[in-house]
Amino acid sequence: MIIRDATTVDWRVIWPFLHQIVVAGDTFTYDLGLGNAEAEALWMVRAPGRVVVAEAHGGEVVGTANMYANRAGPGAHIASASYMVDPVHQGRGVGRALVSDSLRWARAQGFQGMQFNAVAQTNSSAVRLYESLGFTIVGTVPGGFRHPVDGDVGLHVMFYPL
Amino acid sequence: MIIRDATTVDWRVIWPFLHQIVVAGDTFTYDLGLGNAEAEALWMVRAPGRVVVAEAHGGEVVGTANMYANRAGPGAHIASASYMVDPVHQGRGVGRALVSDSLRWARAQGFQGMQFNAVAQTNSSAVRLYESLGFTIVGTVPGGFRHPVDGDVGLHVMFYPL
Repeated sequence: MIIRDATTVDWRVIWPFLHQIVVAGDTFTYDLGLGNAEAEALWMVRAPGRVVVAEAHGGEVVGTANMYANRAGPGAHIASASYMVDPVHQGRGVGRALVSDSLRWARAQGFQGMQFNAVAQTNSSAVRLYESLGFTIVGTVPGGFRHPVDGDVGLHVMFYPL
Repeated sequence: MIIRDATTVDWRVIWPFLHQIVVAGDTFTYDLGLGNAEAEALWMVRAPGRVVVAEAHGGEVVGTANMYANRAGPGAHIASASYMVDPVHQGRGVGRALVSDSLRWARAQGFQGMQFNAVAQTNSSAVRLYESLGFTIVGTVPGGFRHPVDGDVGLHVMFYPL
């Protein structure tokens, strides 16, 4: 697997699995009715942010990440990022590779930490992955995530110092 | 003091003190070089969000607040808000009136809680005010706020259940 900068052409292969993940409504705090163009504007962040794709051997795009300053001004020294792995390819280390790559990028860019603002408590595979890479749960907003099956569950803020 | 919905005309009196607060760089994670038009687009949120001003007796605008859903989709049941009080009029209960009004609004709109994503630890008057109204510090991102004098200080996530 390689991770490379995404191009505008990649959006065509990102959108189907990103859309599937958004519509499921169990991980991202995105509008479930998000359209293609709106999602592209949201996901394909511009420089100084960065968008990457993970490519399997053979060139198939199996996941994507974006990364950027979490806030402006006096908060701009902390990065944030989001990850989407095609559900067909989950459980094979794609997410781990994407997170590790984004941490390398953030460190190289001079960020002092990586913050995730909204990790659903029920997304236990993501929480476990982030914790295994050294992130800690800074706090949990009670009932901050409305899960389609589990109801209102906690929404974690997670942090990794760089 | 009364609190009323802001109109586009109010921006002309909001901008000078909002600009002063942003440039000071000790409370908001906004770009310190934020221009007038950019700030207006950022602050004057549209419906279903809401912008208000606090008016002293005589009609002088002494503060402003905006309020909105903190996130989309499965996070859209939690509100957020920001407050700016003209430094000349601070310490007279304007902030308290604005926060109380935004909590009433959020409750009336059916939100399940109010979350502040980024409260600088050093902004102790704001932290004390929010705590006195029932907010709790859910967590603190270590060094998440680059204070112009104190250096990197914690950035609180605060929450009030509705």
